[in-house]
Amino acid sequence: MTASPLYLDDLTVGDTALTDTHTIDEQQIVEFATGFDPQPFHLDREAAEGTFFRGLAASGWHTAAVTMRLMVTSGLPLADGIIGAGGEISWPRPTRPGDVMQVRMTVLEVRPSRSKPDQGLVTVEADTFNQDGDVLQHLVTKVLVFRRPTGA
Amino acid sequence: MTASPLYLDDLTVGDTALTDTHTIDEQQIVEFATGFDPQPFHLDREAAEGTFFRGLAASGWHTAAVTMRLMVTSGLPLADGIIGAGGEISWPRPTRPGDVMQVRMTVLEVRPSRSKPDQGLVTVEADTFNQDGDVLQHLVTKVLVFRRPTGA
Repeated sequence: MTASPLYLDDLTVGDTALTDTHTIDEQQIVEFATGFDPQPFHLDREAAEGTFFRGLAASGWHTAAVTMRLMVTSGLPLADGIIGAGGEISWPRPTRPGDVMQVRMTVLEVRPSRSKPDQGLVTVEADTFNQDGDVLQHLVTKVLVFRRPTGA
Repeated sequence: MTASPLYLDDLTVGDTALTDTHTIDEQQIVEFATGFDPQPFHLDREAAEGTFFRGLAASGWHTAAVTMRLMVTSGLPLADGIIGAGGEISWPRPTRPGDVMQVRMTVLEVRPSRSKPDQGLVTVEADTFNQDGDVLQHLVTKVLVFRRPTGA
């Protein structure tokens, strides 16, 4: 991928980007959970053993948040930023302390707006996986992308 | 709603819960964005003015994280916690500094597992809105819920 800012005009179905990695640890998991998802399986290693997760697991929303950071800092360099309208998200398996997270973005659809000539919606698939290739999160999201301004 | 822990057996389509509120402010928005979504419209009030958002807006993932906190601490009191498998999420409008966030949970479907007699999947709609009734986030999520243990 080029690092030049990308406009709608620059995107094609099948374009991909592979982000940098982020290593998650127990402290990050507990800190996020304390603020946003205070449940035993996200907060305490020992308490987590006796739960469905059989050990400490990151909140799914923490996995989503780290995924966003990786996409923003090293994913497709969209000119006006990554403006998500929503999407479908699933967590096939929990993110664990020590996981080295990385995201593969793939453009699934590029759809210019009919009513707003300066913008369009791009459907992006973003798979977050760990060092073993296990998929931690599957996200298909619609992102608002602007056309290259006239004269730019 | 009762505060007693709820098992799959206790849930019925149409059950609702209204959470406590959470007031979000500029500091929280900037702090979350710094960690997870470092883009101008989430980081800096003045820089945000010139963007699509026309002012500081919370990251959608921040809205999702606060929603989760409200559901965990004051939503449907599921006996084994809120274990989400994923779902569909959308942000009809941005969360702004000063928004008083609240979540209305509604049970849309209760489906006992065919293969695992001790559990089932419950589809929950969770609408996050502000003090004006504006919907900030619409989430439909599938949650893993366990049956009441024999003898409990």
